[in-house]
Amino acid sequence: MPSISQKGRSMPESPIRKLVPFAEHALKKGIKVIHLNIGQPDIKTPKIAMDAVRDHDLEILAYGRSEGSETYREKISQYYHKHQLQIRAEDIIVSTGGSEALSFAIGSITDTDDEIIVPEPFYANYNGFATAAGAIVVPVVSQIDNNFALPPIEEFEKLISPKTKAILICNPGNPTGYLYSKEEIKKLADIVKKHDIFLISDEVYREFTYDGKEHRSILQEPGMDEYGIIVDSVSKRYSMCGARIGYLVSKNKEVVKASLKFAQARLSPPTFAQMAAEAALDTPNSYFNAVNREYESRRNILLDELHKIDGIKWGRPQGAFYCIVELPIADADDFARWLLQDYNLNGETVMVAPAAGFYATEGLGKNQIRIAYVLEKESLKRAVHILNEALKEYKKLF
Amino acid sequence: MPSISQKGRSMPESPIRKLVPFAEHALKKGIKVIHLNIGQPDIKTPKIAMDAVRDHDLEILAYGRSEGSETYREKISQYYHKHQLQIRAEDIIVSTGGSEALSFAIGSITDTDDEIIVPEPFYANYNGFATAAGAIVVPVVSQIDNNFALPPIEEFEKLISPKTKAILICNPGNPTGYLYSKEEIKKLADIVKKHDIFLISDEVYREFTYDGKEHRSILQEPGMDEYGIIVDSVSKRYSMCGARIGYLVSKNKEVVKASLKFAQARLSPPTFAQMAAEAALDTPNSYFNAVNREYESRRNILLDELHKIDGIKWGRPQGAFYCIVELPIADADDFARWLLQDYNLNGETVMVAPAAGFYATEGLGKNQIRIAYVLEKESLKRAVHILNEALKEYKKLF
Repeated sequence: MPSISQKGRSMPESPIRKLVPFAEHALKKGIKVIHLNIGQPDIKTPKIAMDAVRDHDLEILAYGRSEGSETYREKISQYYHKHQLQIRAEDIIVSTGGSEALSFAIGSITDTDDEIIVPEPFYANYNGFATAAGAIVVPVVSQIDNNFALPPIEEFEKLISPKTKAILICNPGNPTGYLYSKEEIKKLADIVKKHDIFLISDEVYREFTYDGKEHRSILQEPGMDEYGIIVDSVSKRYSMCGARIGYLVSKNKEVVKASLKFAQARLSPPTFAQMAAEAALDTPNSYFNAVNREYESRRNILLDELHKIDGIKWGRPQGAFYCIVELPIADADDFARWLLQDYNLNGETVMVAPAAGFYATEGLGKNQIRIAYVLEKESLKRAVHILNEALKEYKKLF
Repeated sequence: MPSISQKGRSMPESPIRKLVPFAEHALKKGIKVIHLNIGQPDIKTPKIAMDAVRDHDLEILAYGRSEGSETYREKISQYYHKHQLQIRAEDIIVSTGGSEALSFAIGSITDTDDEIIVPEPFYANYNGFATAAGAIVVPVVSQIDNNFALPPIEEFEKLISPKTKAILICNPGNPTGYLYSKEEIKKLADIVKKHDIFLISDEVYREFTYDGKEHRSILQEPGMDEYGIIVDSVSKRYSMCGARIGYLVSKNKEVVKASLKFAQARLSPPTFAQMAAEAALDTPNSYFNAVNREYESRRNILLDELHKIDGIKWGRPQGAFYCIVELPIADADDFARWLLQDYNLNGETVMVAPAAGFYATEGLGKNQIRIAYVLEKESLKRAVHILNEALKEYKKLF
C-alpha cells in the first residue's frame, strides 16, 4: 500500500475541526450550541451582489481571464483609490479567495525551506499555505498584555537569515483584533527594506476598525512599491465568504508576473462569484457604516461581559471581529471539549476556538481561546454569561 | 529590491499565452481569428444548472463545508454508480476545479523533489501544479505513429525510483485524444501495485468517447482501492468551465484525510458554482448523447479535412476534443506566430497551440500543434482549409 507524503502528514488540521463531532453530539442531546468559534458573519450580503447573480443571462459558463476580468480589476483599482492607495488594474490578480492570493504570494517568493516570519498568534491557515508550498513559518511572539501589538523590531531582526523571504502580517489581525499603527507599519517597512525581503500584509479586514482608528496599508508607506504584497478578499467585507474571491496586489512587476503563472495554471477564478464581487463594489457606504457600528457595539458588549469574569485577560480588539481571551485554566482544548460534552446552562452551551492552533511555538496559547463576535448582541451576551458560569464549574473539577 | 524565488521563475507559462498579443494585433488589423487553440466548448451549459443560480434565495453567501456539501457529494456518488464506480460520498472532496483536485493529490503524496511519471505529451498545467508543490514531472514519450497509446510498460519501469510517488495519466487525453484500453489500464494498475506507488487518473473527459468505445476508469480495475486517485471536473462535462468545480476521488482513506487538510486551509469551494454543479447532475442523458454526437461528427470532419493536407500526420482521437497534428515544418511556435502576424486568407486566419508546451522533454513536439475541435462544423472546416493554404505559403519562406 503506497503511503502519503511527509507534507500530507504535516499539513495542520483546522484548530476547530476536531471539536465538530463534540458539537454534533451536543446537538443530538438537544443542547443548543452558541458558536463563538467561527468567523462566519451573520450580516446579510449586499442585495446588489446577490441580485447580480440572480439576474445573470449567461448561456455558456466559460473560462474567464486568469488574472480576473478587465472590468472587475478596473473597479477594484477605483476601490483602492478611495482608500488612498494608488493601485492600477495591472497590479491586481483576482484569486479564488484571499487564501489563493496568499498561496500565489508564497509560491512566487519562496523555495523549499525558505522562511516567512509571522507575529503569533496568527491565522492558522498561514501554516497550511506555507506547508503546501514547502516553506516554513517562523513565529515572533506578540503579547496579550500588550494587546498583541507589534513585537519589538529587534525580535524580527534576530530571526532574519538568508532563508528569510518575507514578513507576513494580518492587519487588523485575526485572531488578535489588533490594528497596527502608522508607526508600526513604518518600522516593518524599514526592516524589510533594510534586509531586502518582502512584506506581505493580509488586509481583508481593512474596513473593520473601531474607536475612530484608521487603517494603514503597507502600500501607503513611501518606497514600498517593490517590497509590498497585499492579500485581500471580499469574504468579510461584503459578508460573502462563500463567493471565494480575493486578490493579490503588488507594484512589484516580477511578483505579479510570477503570480500570474500560478493563476494561469488553475485557469480562472469562479465566474459567478466574480460577478457578485464586481457588483458588490457598488455597495453604498451606508452599508459599511452600519456594519461597522454593529461590530463596534458587539465588541463593546463583549468587553463589558468579559469584565464580569474573574481571573481572565484579553487583547482589546480595535479591528476585525476576534478577541483572544486568556482563561484561568491549564488546557483550553480540554475546556472547549468539556463545554460541548459535559456542560450546559439551561440547555445551552458555547463553542470556542482553542488558541494553541494560532501559535506556531509549541506550548503557547494553551490557556487561551479565540472568540469571534459575529453574533447579534443578545446571543453574544448570553454566550459570555454561559462561558462565565461554565468556567466556575470547570474549575471545581481540578 | 527583493527577488522572486526559483519556483516563481520556473513556473511554466501557458503555451498559448505568448501568442495572445499577436492575436490581438491581428484583430486590430481587422483580421478574423478562428480559434483552434483553446478547450473552451461552444456548447451551451445545461439550463437546469444556470437556472439553479438564477433562482437562488440566499441572503448570506456563507462558507460551505471544506469537502463540499453533503447533498452534492451524495449526488456525485450516485453519478459514479451510474458509471459502474462504487464511490461513496466519503471518498469525494469537492475542489475548485479539477486543477485544485490535482494540487491536493500532489500535495498529499509528494514531498520536495519527489517524482511523478507522466506520458507525454500531457496537459501543460500538470507541470505547473508539480512545480508549485516542489515535485518533478518525469516524462515517458508516447508516439504519434501509435496514436499516443500507452508507451511500453518497461519504459515506465525504467524510470521508477524511490523518488517516484505516482504515475499520472489523462484519460481520454488532453492533448492527444487517446482513450486507454481496458488492457492498458490493467497494465498501469499492475505496475503501480508492484512498486507501491499511486495511479492518478484525470478523467474529466470520461463521457467524451467516440467510435462506440467505452471509458475504463482506474477504479473499475480490481484491487486499486488503495492505489487510485481520480481527478474529475464539471468543466467540460456540462460546458461549465467558469464554474470552477471539480473533485478528488479516492478509496484510500489516508489520501482523502490529507486532501481534506489542504481543502480546510482554503476553507470551501465556491458556493454559487457548487449550486450550479449540483443542479447539473440532473441533466438528462439526451444532452450528453447530443453533445457526443456533435463532437464525434466534428472529429470526423477534422480528420476528413486533415486528409487533404500533404505531409502531415496526426494521432486519431477517440475521446475528448483535441488532436495533435505533426506538420512538415521545423518550428510550430514560429508558424503559429506567423499565422497571426503575417498571414490571412480572405481576411481570416487561425490560432493554434504549438505542442512543445505539452512535452517535458526539451526539443520534442516542436513540429506539432494541438487542435481543439470545439467549433461548429462550418468554422472547423474553414479553419483547417486555412491551415492547409497557410502551410503552402509558409513552406515557400524556407
